[in-house]
Amino acid sequence: MKKEFSEFIDFLQEKIKNEIKALDTNSKFKIDKWDRESGGGGLTIAIENGNLFEKGGVNVSKVFGDLPKSISKFLNSSGSDFYACGISLILHPKNPMIPTFHANLRYFELYENGIVKDSWFGGGVDLTPYYIFEDDIIFFHKAIKKICDNFRPNYYEKFKKKCDDYFWNEHRNEARGVGGLFFDHCRESPENKLKDWFSFMVDLGNNLMTPYFHIVNKRKEMSFTKKNVEWQQIRRGRYVEFNLIHDKGTVFGLKTNGRIESILVSMPPKVKWVYSFNPEKGSEEEKLLKILKTPRNWI
Amino acid sequence: MKKEFSEFIDFLQEKIKNEIKALDTNSKFKIDKWDRESGGGGLTIAIENGNLFEKGGVNVSKVFGDLPKSISKFLNSSGSDFYACGISLILHPKNPMIPTFHANLRYFELYENGIVKDSWFGGGVDLTPYYIFEDDIIFFHKAIKKICDNFRPNYYEKFKKKCDDYFWNEHRNEARGVGGLFFDHCRESPENKLKDWFSFMVDLGNNLMTPYFHIVNKRKEMSFTKKNVEWQQIRRGRYVEFNLIHDKGTVFGLKTNGRIESILVSMPPKVKWVYSFNPEKGSEEEKLLKILKTPRNWI
Repeated sequence: MKKEFSEFIDFLQEKIKNEIKALDTNSKFKIDKWDRESGGGGLTIAIENGNLFEKGGVNVSKVFGDLPKSISKFLNSSGSDFYACGISLILHPKNPMIPTFHANLRYFELYENGIVKDSWFGGGVDLTPYYIFEDDIIFFHKAIKKICDNFRPNYYEKFKKKCDDYFWNEHRNEARGVGGLFFDHCRESPENKLKDWFSFMVDLGNNLMTPYFHIVNKRKEMSFTKKNVEWQQIRRGRYVEFNLIHDKGTVFGLKTNGRIESILVSMPPKVKWVYSFNPEKGSEEEKLLKILKTPRNWI
Repeated sequence: MKKEFSEFIDFLQEKIKNEIKALDTNSKFKIDKWDRESGGGGLTIAIENGNLFEKGGVNVSKVFGDLPKSISKFLNSSGSDFYACGISLILHPKNPMIPTFHANLRYFELYENGIVKDSWFGGGVDLTPYYIFEDDIIFFHKAIKKICDNFRPNYYEKFKKKCDDYFWNEHRNEARGVGGLFFDHCRESPENKLKDWFSFMVDLGNNLMTPYFHIVNKRKEMSFTKKNVEWQQIRRGRYVEFNLIHDKGTVFGLKTNGRIESILVSMPPKVKWVYSFNPEKGSEEEKLLKILKTPRNWI
């Protein structure tokens, strides 16, 4: 599956870049091809100062080499060498009425003496809103449920739960956002061949952006105030906290000497930390916090 | 030493608050007394929107209780219960020509069956500039060297080296700032009684702010541009990265269920992440980066 998936993520990166370009004609791309000293490399497409997207990234990386001990522990598997490839996406919109979007599709192989010992897919997609529009969240969850249902009937429920568990900002006791899908260690099994997982990856990848772009188009003309932007910047601080303290993808990148600018392209553009900021009772800002405290079922 | 140090940090917190008030008459303080559910509490003084200081904090915390396993490993010592108290200071100036200031003085006790098994002091002080004024950095290092020299002749060199090692942003391969002092596990020994360390703590605490306030006064009227502020905000991003990825104090606070707003009062107010930002060749911004790549001796 290595070759097939590797080709698919290249195709997907180009496709999504073109979709973003079509949607946000003002966005500038910085495209960097990079090599990893100890094996592999990647292509980073960074988005900056668009009309719709203030910052973002569409990254493909394909890295391999010796497996660091600290990583093997963290993967719940073993091997002397690894191969990892994936595409990761992050879009930080300018308008606080549009949520931040994140998605990731990845494939791993572990080797011992040159022989494949283990291999699996992982990935997910999730939304981080600043203001709650329940219709948008329901629309997004319905769309990703449909992709899961096409594969296996109970997987939406399973992956939605994993997403709520994973994107939990433990030290704040709140979710990063309103969830989506998260899955990992999707291996060959009696229920699913590795090629079934691959088909799911392709289906998810190809349909990933549709519900998000629907929301972007629906909200992009909405007006917003300075106060809305301040709230967005404070909430982006929570995003930074999650990514730097808890996110395993970031830790994996840092521990395997990944390209730092590609890993941290996920960081929001402008961020604020205000001591002990509490939104007004009954406000839209407080409504968001309440939802993040207790993840709910959106369908 | 528990009682003496605990009283000293209360005294010091009040003293420094008054010094900040005298220097920056426009600064507003938010003062929060807090309790820790599993033992102890603290007093947080947060500074906001001053003329000189955009954000900052003067924190005292005194916490105790069961020692989490994860922490005992990380302390290189053991015990079933702990007591920890300390004062920590952070000042993020508005003017990018003034460095960010950080200092911390702390005391630990570990117990087994109610009996003290181990106790030590730790702490440090360091500067994080946005623009390099060599005179200021040398002045600061000379002042803290004098405090060390009054205690033991070789300690400045030792603690300066530890500071360079500790405030190293590994994933960026650069120092957080231009260093200062860092020391930990300062125990009773043939060379120093615990009360000798206590005297050093008192001396350092009482003289901590003088060199920094000297720099603040020297630089506060300097003009600056929008570009200078953007650089300051980008560099503040590195400060966030260090504190959330590498800083043991932050990890300790998060793992012992510290008060999150008090721990993260250290976060800068306004921060920017720009993909792959590289300052112009020969610029003042590039000069800073060069210095951060290879820590130097300032005296």
